[in-house]
Amino acid sequence: MSKVLVFGHKNPDTDSITAAISYAYLKRQLGMDAEAVRLGVVSNETAYALEHFGFEAPRFIEKAAPEASQVILVDHNEKQQSVDDLDEVQIIEVIDHHRIANFETNDPLYYRAEPVGCTATILNKLYKENGVEVPKDIAGLMLSAIISDSLLFKSPTFTEEDRVAAEELAEIAGVNAEEYGLEMLKAGADLSDKTIEELIALDAKEFTFENGLKIEIAQVNAVDVDEVMEQQPEFEAAIDKVIAEKGLGLFLFVVTDIINNDSIVLALGEQAERAAAAFDVSLSNRTATLTGVVSRKKQIVPVLTEALK
Amino acid sequence: MSKVLVFGHKNPDTDSITAAISYAYLKRQLGMDAEAVRLGVVSNETAYALEHFGFEAPRFIEKAAPEASQVILVDHNEKQQSVDDLDEVQIIEVIDHHRIANFETNDPLYYRAEPVGCTATILNKLYKENGVEVPKDIAGLMLSAIISDSLLFKSPTFTEEDRVAAEELAEIAGVNAEEYGLEMLKAGADLSDKTIEELIALDAKEFTFENGLKIEIAQVNAVDVDEVMEQQPEFEAAIDKVIAEKGLGLFLFVVTDIINNDSIVLALGEQAERAAAAFDVSLSNRTATLTGVVSRKKQIVPVLTEALK
Repeated sequence: MSKVLVFGHKNPDTDSITAAISYAYLKRQLGMDAEAVRLGVVSNETAYALEHFGFEAPRFIEKAAPEASQVILVDHNEKQQSVDDLDEVQIIEVIDHHRIANFETNDPLYYRAEPVGCTATILNKLYKENGVEVPKDIAGLMLSAIISDSLLFKSPTFTEEDRVAAEELAEIAGVNAEEYGLEMLKAGADLSDKTIEELIALDAKEFTFENGLKIEIAQVNAVDVDEVMEQQPEFEAAIDKVIAEKGLGLFLFVVTDIINNDSIVLALGEQAERAAAAFDVSLSNRTATLTGVVSRKKQIVPVLTEALK
Repeated sequence: MSKVLVFGHKNPDTDSITAAISYAYLKRQLGMDAEAVRLGVVSNETAYALEHFGFEAPRFIEKAAPEASQVILVDHNEKQQSVDDLDEVQIIEVIDHHRIANFETNDPLYYRAEPVGCTATILNKLYKENGVEVPKDIAGLMLSAIISDSLLFKSPTFTEEDRVAAEELAEIAGVNAEEYGLEMLKAGADLSDKTIEELIALDAKEFTFENGLKIEIAQVNAVDVDEVMEQQPEFEAAIDKVIAEKGLGLFLFVVTDIINNDSIVLALGEQAERAAAAFDVSLSNRTATLTGVVSRKKQIVPVLTEALK
């Protein structure tokens, strides 16, 4: 059997990187020649988790087809978030927790999506269903993903199933989830070594609506949001470039306060006012505060999809 | 909690009808107010299975939104195969074994697809995962679906997982699968009470390609294929009407010999020659024999998708 590449989305977050590693491991135990790879730069948060549990970052790839005919997607399904040459390979599995869109196959496949907060929660089930024990170090990675996606168990995306999985995985990994999690989030919120261009690309996702409208939503976590926003003019210049290059109708830059769980958004593009109106706020100097909003997937994407479709 | 409608595809086959019944039952056991409904006429084969295990056919619906805000799709995902007002309701779950296409949601959902021969095989797992026993009569329905989708365990879509599920379900249902299965297939292959229009609509599925091409593939099972083809002129007249009404580039009418496991196809529409060429056959009087071809999903749709895209 030839090699199968396993990867999460572009601009990978901790769930995308660790899900690729954790699921490739499971598939190897089940006899598949699976290799975890990544489609982008590893964030400081993810680097912290990888180092803490003794892993190297997966290998970066730009294209899949030159080295494999089959791939497995984790933590995403939308084509524009995936590898550029996705059309040239066969998707044999998807493990995900997002909405389904811009996704199509010629053949039946294994597709497992559940409306939970993190891919790792589904992977924890798949280990059980296949009778494979989660190794201690991989349990640490999977726990890191749940902490990351739930902002330490506080996001509205965090479900009872995520809670149960996090408890089981913390037990196996032998860590105190609260203590370890805060350290990991702080490592991720240290943005001091990032350029403006990196900050707006670090965790950015593009969405295409049926009417042809393309938008991009980038999110960073911060301990001191005001400090980040001091560079607003520089962000605007960099974002305007992206808007022009990609033909976007909206770029939303979301800076999330990991202590207070609010977000400041910087909205640029011709749909900016409509986007703000969708959240019942007005833009002031192109920014607005979204109180209690921390989840792009649950609190931002559905609102914009409804408002801009 | 308000009612959730559970249904298979239009022109329902035995898997679509019985999966709706079997999954709605499981969801009710788990506390959901789920009701199985259907989007089309019950076939003779399905009627035989329902009667044998003591079920009434589910209620027919034309639209979902007037009575429910949430739905569960079984045995399909493509929009054009589903209820007409699908865009007006929320799809909260999909349980399926087909390719994924023309499917999109605004929100995360539970999506469970596996590359197996029958939805019932996946449902059998879901009963186990949820710790619910399959009742005897529902086991009979689920077994009927596997027999139907696999043409009594002979289709290339039939996997090891389907075989294991069929054995377990036959045991619970207390029937001899081979004997019961042949009777059920014969009941389905009795086409004597059907009009020409009914025969070409009975198990017809429409597919839309990215380039805008629309095709329809209808399949009937028969014991005596030649007898069915005696009415070729009448079929052609009826199919030409459908092609004109729906703007199809191809209508493929597949008559499958359930004893010898070959199919005769009648190909009409401007793409007919290209379709035949995709199978390395030439049309003679607009028909061709496809030796060993019994599965629309595995042996016909992928070939046409590749050739006509």
